[in-house]
Amino acid sequence: MRMVDMIAKKRDGGELTTEEIRFLVEGYTSGSIPDYQMSAWAMAVLFRGMTARETGDLTLAMAGSGEQLDLSSLSGVKVDKHSTGGVGDKTTLVVAPLVAAAGIPVAKMSGRGLGYSGGTIDKLESFSGFQVERTREQFLQQVHDIGVSVIGQSGNLTPADKKLYALRDVTATVEAVPLIASSIMSKKIAAGADAILLDVKVGKGAFMKNLEQAETLARAMVDIGSQVGRKTVAVISDMNQPLGFAVGNALEVKEAIETLAGKGPRDLTELVLAIGARMLLLGGLVATVEEGRGKLEEIMASGKAVDKLAEMVEAQGGDKEEVYNLEKLPKATLLHAITAKQDGFITDIDAEAVGHASVVLGAGRLTKEMAIDLAVGLVLHKKRGDQVQAGETLVTVHANQEQLLQSALQELEGAFQISDIPPGKQTLIYKIVEQMR
Amino acid sequence: MRMVDMIAKKRDGGELTTEEIRFLVEGYTSGSIPDYQMSAWAMAVLFRGMTARETGDLTLAMAGSGEQLDLSSLSGVKVDKHSTGGVGDKTTLVVAPLVAAAGIPVAKMSGRGLGYSGGTIDKLESFSGFQVERTREQFLQQVHDIGVSVIGQSGNLTPADKKLYALRDVTATVEAVPLIASSIMSKKIAAGADAILLDVKVGKGAFMKNLEQAETLARAMVDIGSQVGRKTVAVISDMNQPLGFAVGNALEVKEAIETLAGKGPRDLTELVLAIGARMLLLGGLVATVEEGRGKLEEIMASGKAVDKLAEMVEAQGGDKEEVYNLEKLPKATLLHAITAKQDGFITDIDAEAVGHASVVLGAGRLTKEMAIDLAVGLVLHKKRGDQVQAGETLVTVHANQEQLLQSALQELEGAFQISDIPPGKQTLIYKIVEQMR
Repeated sequence: MRMVDMIAKKRDGGELTTEEIRFLVEGYTSGSIPDYQMSAWAMAVLFRGMTARETGDLTLAMAGSGEQLDLSSLSGVKVDKHSTGGVGDKTTLVVAPLVAAAGIPVAKMSGRGLGYSGGTIDKLESFSGFQVERTREQFLQQVHDIGVSVIGQSGNLTPADKKLYALRDVTATVEAVPLIASSIMSKKIAAGADAILLDVKVGKGAFMKNLEQAETLARAMVDIGSQVGRKTVAVISDMNQPLGFAVGNALEVKEAIETLAGKGPRDLTELVLAIGARMLLLGGLVATVEEGRGKLEEIMASGKAVDKLAEMVEAQGGDKEEVYNLEKLPKATLLHAITAKQDGFITDIDAEAVGHASVVLGAGRLTKEMAIDLAVGLVLHKKRGDQVQAGETLVTVHANQEQLLQSALQELEGAFQISDIPPGKQTLIYKIVEQMR
Repeated sequence: MRMVDMIAKKRDGGELTTEEIRFLVEGYTSGSIPDYQMSAWAMAVLFRGMTARETGDLTLAMAGSGEQLDLSSLSGVKVDKHSTGGVGDKTTLVVAPLVAAAGIPVAKMSGRGLGYSGGTIDKLESFSGFQVERTREQFLQQVHDIGVSVIGQSGNLTPADKKLYALRDVTATVEAVPLIASSIMSKKIAAGADAILLDVKVGKGAFMKNLEQAETLARAMVDIGSQVGRKTVAVISDMNQPLGFAVGNALEVKEAIETLAGKGPRDLTELVLAIGARMLLLGGLVATVEEGRGKLEEIMASGKAVDKLAEMVEAQGGDKEEVYNLEKLPKATLLHAITAKQDGFITDIDAEAVGHASVVLGAGRLTKEMAIDLAVGLVLHKKRGDQVQAGETLVTVHANQEQLLQSALQELEGAFQISDIPPGKQTLIYKIVEQMR
């Protein structure tokens, strides 16, 4: 087998065999296939696509390229959850303890944020003393004992994907849907998932800008799930405006805890229930989505969801008092209110602009090496469709440096659109993409 | 400027600016743009193509990436000639002394053979003592003195093209027409050509398998000529059967000398006249193709063409007696005749199979490092359309090793097709592609 022949085959619209895809992934991981062949192949994939079979094979080959987490010692169906990333997306912070409290074991590895997509691991570090680096044994033991642990990615998981992702980033091949889909799915499979719930974000603040793109990606990932024998469901949800009100690490943690207590923003609560209910369904705990939602709402109301988060924080070395007393979480020193210049209805809140503003404040990082400020961010007071009067606060900016505050305010210029005419209803969940039976 | 943005632009069907193309070629030559970005870009070019302006810019940037030959000290229009390569293609051996004898200065750098396309330089080494490595000064002085010199490629000409060509070879991007066209044209321009005659081969024994492909390539190169101010004409000629009768280095030299004397095979003579006449036209020596042909036929008949070759051989250290006494050229020890198994008409001689057989015998090389045997090869006795009787010789194989002879005979199995019905007339020159006026 020669890589050049596989590039030519894909270039000409052909389908690679399972053996060829394994050869390609193994060769690239070991270094026997050089970057310059892999990038030419990736560009050919961008133009020609891949069949479901090819994409499934690529996913499994990448999942198998390094260490794989063995969660078989944990009882129950291990359901993982992945979001393609958005502004104010603290869903995992809520969903993980929530479904764990319902009885789904959550052994989750999560990433740090990059760009304006926040990372769950960064957010969890808002709890003083919280440990995101754990040994494999500590991690599994904790899930065994209390049902949930969220830690940073550790070990040599999916090295082929890491290498290919870095290459795609500099060769204008990031956009190839089969490569995006297999990248995400390979990481979930290597992390031991039996079933996968995908939250595919669409809109101004997401990688996928329109519904058609989002559906194509969701369908590609769900099809991979079918190919590789993992039950997979994708929820396509809105990211034109930020999710919930809070954007920024500690600010999002506060909002997540309020949501766990059943007192969160309507959109976040709705998304958490939609995702959580389907995770219970995937895990075989309930028979219908409605049953799942009912169960989760009960758990929220009972206080058990907040307690589960507190248990997890304590088990990972954090101060669980901070879960019950939100005033103890990191706080910014400079608060600045942006007010409405006119009466009317909010017709748009530019999620991308809000995301950029949060990065400017220090809540996110532009390169992997940057340090972040856990306290800073933004809290919206209004969402799309809300009525406002001139002078009312639209958003409070939480900053720690005057200069960064000023830059953030510049980013937010024009982010809020106000009109005399109320906008149409904002859809939160556009579509559920499920496996064909 | 970032290379990743240029890859994305081309991927999305955009047109790169002159500055962007310069940046790309300079960056790739210097190493600041890595292979993996260049190969992704090349694959995007394969799918999206390039405009004539882009291709012209790429050609000039590659021509300017290294040394450039300055032929301005030589008087007259320097017309270079390039063949895309074929089996038995000894055209340059004939054309160079022929047009030099007519008064066109020929300062030609030529390549060695690779695969079944023979190299002019290899063939010339059939003359004992012939030097293909000359200093720049010796080379120009010889053209000044006797009007012709053919040497090996020397110096650091078009390093960008060398690097890109090697990369394309291993990334399945050889086929991108704008890249083929600019590769050829950049070398001619760096070698000092004022005008360029291109012989684009089409058929089984050529890189371009059908007329449409050949025309596309010819048009791309002629358009580059227009873009960069070099008069350029392309002749599209047949390579379904070998050109002439002889295939193999010394065997082709013999045939070339016979052709220079006006006693060559009909097809080779016709092609040489068609190409040579247009070179005289490009050089401003004649007003019409017909006038050029007449002049060249006279020169052949007068013996001046053979004399010019002899002068060149002598000037470059070779034994000019070998030009007049062909028996002195290298000879193989084993001759084997392949005969017709039936009466009929020859409907096909597979140029590719004949080419492979010559490589197997040792006349060509599969890798740049291989040594070749100047004496071996094949001599056809019949061409397409000829009538044969069972038992008549179709081809004589000239070998120096029994084992290689046997392998060559295997390659030739089925290369000659004989039928009761005569084939249609074989076209030699399909089309002349000229610049728009």
